[in-house]
Amino acid sequence: MSGSPDPSRRSETARRAILAAALDLAGKLGYAKLSIEGIAHAAGVGKQTIYRWWPSKGSLLFDAFLTLAGEGEAAALPDTGDLAADLKLVLHATITELTDPRYDRPMRALHTEIVHDPALAADYASRLDGPMRELKKARLRSAQEAGELATDLDLDVAVDLLFGPVLNRWLQHTGPLTPDYADRVVDTALRGLRP
Amino acid sequence: MSGSPDPSRRSETARRAILAAALDLAGKLGYAKLSIEGIAHAAGVGKQTIYRWWPSKGSLLFDAFLTLAGEGEAAALPDTGDLAADLKLVLHATITELTDPRYDRPMRALHTEIVHDPALAADYASRLDGPMRELKKARLRSAQEAGELATDLDLDVAVDLLFGPVLNRWLQHTGPLTPDYADRVVDTALRGLRP
Repeated sequence: MSGSPDPSRRSETARRAILAAALDLAGKLGYAKLSIEGIAHAAGVGKQTIYRWWPSKGSLLFDAFLTLAGEGEAAALPDTGDLAADLKLVLHATITELTDPRYDRPMRALHTEIVHDPALAADYASRLDGPMRELKKARLRSAQEAGELATDLDLDVAVDLLFGPVLNRWLQHTGPLTPDYADRVVDTALRGLRP
Repeated sequence: MSGSPDPSRRSETARRAILAAALDLAGKLGYAKLSIEGIAHAAGVGKQTIYRWWPSKGSLLFDAFLTLAGEGEAAALPDTGDLAADLKLVLHATITELTDPRYDRPMRALHTEIVHDPALAADYASRLDGPMRELKKARLRSAQEAGELATDLDLDVAVDLLFGPVLNRWLQHTGPLTPDYADRVVDTALRGLRP
């Protein structure tokens, strides 16, 4: 009701500007050249504001991704009753995102920071990979109930087999990242390698 | 036969000293702090010697790994006639290597450089991942001939499903890297996810 700006709202505006600047600069410069100073400058805040909220540029970039994921993605995987089709749909969307130049560099930066930084990896596991994994397992459980999957399946291993290869191929540049590749992964994992 | 040192032999000695120093320092310092200057100092050679042979620290570290792989690993995967047992044996050995502190840091360094450097990734694909992949596919072809695998299998996808998850779990710290995990990956991939 007062004419003076609301401090918590001003903080939220600054926080959003910082997260957006971190993603934008990570994409333009790559992780190695990304600096807290550069992010502060682009976001129009002081460096101390950033250090008050985040202990490192890795944790800041990670929060930027969480915001992105929270805004862009569905809460649950699609469940049309056809597991293979639903998995292919999700993986095709993943490929579209991974090959988008706006996200390619910042996402590579996050994934390689995790490789070297166990604290960030733990954060990633508990706040991003973990919740996403639960959504994937919920979809697989539904398929088990529908008789589409074995009931004694190791769901964690199933998630790794279905969702790992596309991420790997993107990270390691080991082959073209096409929807056809995703389809072959899903079909092969579902039916297994034995005759 | 002459008493003077053989120049090609002297070169080979310097090359080996440089490769050993690169691996050693990558393990101690991590990739970011690894420098050509530091490697030259540890190997007892001039920086120019290194720059004459390698265009970047990434390519030098990669050569160091090729030397390590060439010295330590068998030319072909074991083939006892029991595919599951052979795959588990190989993956257990991989886990032992990945969790060895001498190799953990330099191998993480190589894997993350590949993520950001397409030229190094191409080198990795053609000189390390490619030849290793051929050995894996040769073992799977032998299993196809023995009736252990489907004859119409997509062998590249099969390699990704069998060998990707252990590497991923190590890189992303998403769970404990145990022989039991490797066994569950092999068993699940072979039988498939369907009932």
